[in-house]
Amino acid sequence: MNYPGNIKKSYTKNINYGNRGMFLEGLINQANEVYLENNIAVIYKKPTPIQVVKYDYDTKRIKDAYYLSESTLDYNGVYNGYYIEFDAKSTNTQNLPLANIANHQIKHLEKIINHKGIGFLIIMINNEAYLLPGKKVIDFIKNNQRKSIPYDYIKSNGFQLKIDYLKGIEYIPAVDLLIKEMCDEKNKN
Amino acid sequence: MNYPGNIKKSYTKNINYGNRGMFLEGLINQANEVYLENNIAVIYKKPTPIQVVKYDYDTKRIKDAYYLSESTLDYNGVYNGYYIEFDAKSTNTQNLPLANIANHQIKHLEKIINHKGIGFLIIMINNEAYLLPGKKVIDFIKNNQRKSIPYDYIKSNGFQLKIDYLKGIEYIPAVDLLIKEMCDEKNKN
Repeated sequence: MNYPGNIKKSYTKNINYGNRGMFLEGLINQANEVYLENNIAVIYKKPTPIQVVKYDYDTKRIKDAYYLSESTLDYNGVYNGYYIEFDAKSTNTQNLPLANIANHQIKHLEKIINHKGIGFLIIMINNEAYLLPGKKVIDFIKNNQRKSIPYDYIKSNGFQLKIDYLKGIEYIPAVDLLIKEMCDEKNKN
Repeated sequence: MNYPGNIKKSYTKNINYGNRGMFLEGLINQANEVYLENNIAVIYKKPTPIQVVKYDYDTKRIKDAYYLSESTLDYNGVYNGYYIEFDAKSTNTQNLPLANIANHQIKHLEKIINHKGIGFLIIMINNEAYLLPGKKVIDFIKNNQRKSIPYDYIKSNGFQLKIDYLKGIEYIPAVDLLIKEMCDEKNKN
């Protein structure tokens, strides 16, 4: 991206935030590549939806467009027949502000779970990475008035993920545990 | 989209082709909405990936970008725990030219099937719509030197889909048959 020369002070925050998000995104993309290469899972980041306003057919370039807000989660794909969908969230505070998770993303997460898909968040907090199952995210929101998910909740309800600078964030082992939990739950009923 | 005033003659073909493709896309989007509203399946069209070259932070508009070629299929989601991914192809001839299906799309289809996902094409041919299972697409390509899939092959190996102008293209009943076939196959082995 070309940034215009005149970056306003108010953007500094956004850019830092973006970088932090991009660090996590990079680790997830890395893991997805390793999973694809090693035939473990087929999971991609969805392209960000845009609304094209002006397209130049001569140069085949988009000359005016804007980003649309996402109604789904950023990553999806298939692992051993299971439908996987998740989003990545980063925070540099001691909790994950719920403002980081759009309302329609929560609704989407709920739909995925209802249709027997595996939905979750990968959260980077306190320099640690966690997979927090969608059900735990929804439970928290339904049973709390708080505007953020505290670190302790994430730690005790999520699965900590190994960060490997060659392999990225290895989240499939946590998905295996999540699937096992779902099967145990099903067998109990 | 704003089309520039001066559309070259050579674009006429593309635009017609696009319209035919968009007709099929419209019917599929309609079906996906009905499936979402009635809590039957959660399936979306993926946004087309673009490469942003110039972004204006002041106006929050993309001022220069271009489309990237797709390496996956256009639609994916979850149906009753199954991972679904498919692409829509239209043709106004008596066969489906393989040039309409990119090589990496075929490879992607193969990966989805290997990971126990449900991959297929929805083909509009002779004013009829068919769901052709990914395995049948791959079998054809592996066992033929032909540069297009003939109508007869699609008709005898695919599931014909009902086109309803209110509900769109109803492909889930064909997915049910496909899942049944997969289960029967599995039980035989």
